[in-house]
Amino acid sequence: MSRAKLRNALYAQSGGATAVINASACGVIEAARRAKARIGKLYAARNGILGALNEDLIDTTKESAAAIRALKHTPGAAFGSCRYKLKSPEEDRAKYERLVEVLRAHDIGWFFYNGGNDSADTTLKLSKISAAMGYPLSAIGVPKTIDNDLVGTDCCPGFGSVAKYVATSIREAGLDVASMASTSTRVFVLEVMGRHAGWITAACGLAAERAGEPPHVLLFPELPFDEATFLARVKQTVESVGYCVVAVSEGVRDAQGKFLAEAGSVDAFGHKQLGGVAPVIAQMVQARLGYKPHWAVADYLQRAARHVASKTDVDQAYRVGQAAVKLALEGRNAVMPVIVRTSDRPYRWKIGVAPLDKVANHERRVPRDFVSADGFQITAAARRYLAPLVVGELPPPFRNGLPAYVRLRNAPVRKRLQSAFKA
Amino acid sequence: MSRAKLRNALYAQSGGATAVINASACGVIEAARRAKARIGKLYAARNGILGALNEDLIDTTKESAAAIRALKHTPGAAFGSCRYKLKSPEEDRAKYERLVEVLRAHDIGWFFYNGGNDSADTTLKLSKISAAMGYPLSAIGVPKTIDNDLVGTDCCPGFGSVAKYVATSIREAGLDVASMASTSTRVFVLEVMGRHAGWITAACGLAAERAGEPPHVLLFPELPFDEATFLARVKQTVESVGYCVVAVSEGVRDAQGKFLAEAGSVDAFGHKQLGGVAPVIAQMVQARLGYKPHWAVADYLQRAARHVASKTDVDQAYRVGQAAVKLALEGRNAVMPVIVRTSDRPYRWKIGVAPLDKVANHERRVPRDFVSADGFQITAAARRYLAPLVVGELPPPFRNGLPAYVRLRNAPVRKRLQSAFKA
Repeated sequence: MSRAKLRNALYAQSGGATAVINASACGVIEAARRAKARIGKLYAARNGILGALNEDLIDTTKESAAAIRALKHTPGAAFGSCRYKLKSPEEDRAKYERLVEVLRAHDIGWFFYNGGNDSADTTLKLSKISAAMGYPLSAIGVPKTIDNDLVGTDCCPGFGSVAKYVATSIREAGLDVASMASTSTRVFVLEVMGRHAGWITAACGLAAERAGEPPHVLLFPELPFDEATFLARVKQTVESVGYCVVAVSEGVRDAQGKFLAEAGSVDAFGHKQLGGVAPVIAQMVQARLGYKPHWAVADYLQRAARHVASKTDVDQAYRVGQAAVKLALEGRNAVMPVIVRTSDRPYRWKIGVAPLDKVANHERRVPRDFVSADGFQITAAARRYLAPLVVGELPPPFRNGLPAYVRLRNAPVRKRLQSAFKA
Repeated sequence: MSRAKLRNALYAQSGGATAVINASACGVIEAARRAKARIGKLYAARNGILGALNEDLIDTTKESAAAIRALKHTPGAAFGSCRYKLKSPEEDRAKYERLVEVLRAHDIGWFFYNGGNDSADTTLKLSKISAAMGYPLSAIGVPKTIDNDLVGTDCCPGFGSVAKYVATSIREAGLDVASMASTSTRVFVLEVMGRHAGWITAACGLAAERAGEPPHVLLFPELPFDEATFLARVKQTVESVGYCVVAVSEGVRDAQGKFLAEAGSVDAFGHKQLGGVAPVIAQMVQARLGYKPHWAVADYLQRAARHVASKTDVDQAYRVGQAAVKLALEGRNAVMPVIVRTSDRPYRWKIGVAPLDKVANHERRVPRDFVSADGFQITAAARRYLAPLVVGELPPPFRNGLPAYVRLRNAPVRKRLQSAFKA
């Protein structure tokens, strides 16, 4: 079979970057390279689905094997990502048709979309529309999200590494606060991501292995925040342990459903202040209890922290990338490789397959039985679930004392369409 | 010589904890244990100088060799620290006399105080007063501060690890922002410590190895902040690179000397908001330039991040601890072991000795020739100075996916004085 007749493939990254989304890219690319008898060229869309719409494609075959291997230890989204949600085919018909037009122009037979539930939705719709338009396409999702909120999979690649980062960081900061509490900081507040689902907040709880160890209070977005109960717990903790460490989800809301981060704080000009629930909590502790607080907002640091990634997470991210190519070559469509847990202790997992219509637009929150009755701690069940996900170290190579991350050439593919896309 | 006749030693930790102050403790304790023919018991003061004032001492001989070894990889201050500055002997005479009384009660012949320039000052004064009171004491400082602002030493144990952490983190977050910039975050702001000296801010600059790499803008506490110049640079960077990463010192001030972090932001109740210059900068970028910002405040995470400590820093912290004991045994008094750099490339250093009166109460800021003319970058001279300090990895052991840090027993020493100290 001559190479010219092989159809090409397209990979794209979507939504927030993670420490390991490039490990999935590595899995896709290496598997596609090994399948050179079946797959022509693997392209990547620059900046996610926008690159596909704009016919702004990258030729991954121009990257060396070493560069692709280095993706496995490089955070961020190496081909660029985007926050861009396609609406329903009824509302956004022209965009879906444009996508199929671009795929057709480059003879794309396989499309891999690496993202969360929005991306699963886009992949599913593209799969249906291409079929309706008579364009043969295998559209495969590749799971990714630090929020761990995808259904149909035991966990989401990206989450285990954030979990390891936040648990490590809060353990370390907890030792610091414990040192200082006699004359200085009594309460430390760490704000973590997870606007709707408290998985990252829950992961902070892994740092405490024995009674009294930090973190002492977890604030979940799934539970309404009650100031009096919270302050009473902080006071009780300081009085018994000497200090108190709090992990708070950026998405914590009061009983009226209002985000605490938008508690009406304004700057000198009367502008509403940008986010940050940690300073709100710290201010509350200082004003109501008189304890000196310190606070940190990890923000992107947590989801980019490849230097302390979970080996389990990296392995799973790589494996779902590989598996996506395998599914594509088996002729599967509108599916996503997922993580199936077969045993807690010892931890065992395998790759399964979920249909995209079971994944798209659903959101998995932390179940109530993973949180203690008082709402401030994780339960043994949560620990059993979370613990294996942070296991193992696979640090990047360091050069001159800093992690050596790869920047790809990202050589563009020559455009074949005359028309440009107007978003 | 019978063991009963040997004089004892006292070690105390002071000021903010670091990732490696316990490595210095390890150096002191291991050296004291090896000198068992000369030194009786090594005690530690609980919570720094307060423990000495309160006669609240810890018997380090109750700790196993393994526990002491583990201090070398454990952040925080294992014996507790404090923020408590003794005033002049004229103002605080009773406290200095109390200190000598406690030292005498426990037959302390050597005092090791591990801290910054305030601690050097306290150590110096204690040395003088004990001499005036006819109490024989060898008082030795052990350098420590993440701020790197001690004079008389090439660098300060604690700084290299923060430097490695912030440079690593901003490199990682930079890759994340670069991924997202096409449709989402354009500007990322990381706030770092260093209220008066911008060494940590400067260290962020190590992450950028080639033109255009993040961080693009550094904001030093040594230079007055000018909003227009800053915003112009951010705009120019976004227009040329696509995004902009900013590292800002918590201590940045405007031309009138007012901290930006206190820019008049108030919460819903009209209370002044607690610190946080990163949200102020982010708000400014959003309001004036319309770019979507994200911001992080590393706070204690940066100075507790033993998981990504610099091996150079750990080695130096350990060595100054050892050296302090050696100096004490040589009969030196009112001195501090310091780091002397003998070569930049290859980096070579040795232990030197500084008299405490040269160290106490001085503060070393970032020299102007370490900052580019425009004030937003580090120079080649700064890079030459900073680069070796972050080199080398010496991660802690991990257990179940998280760093395994030691908690000491911290068994109390029986009090010998009848009176309690009233601060």
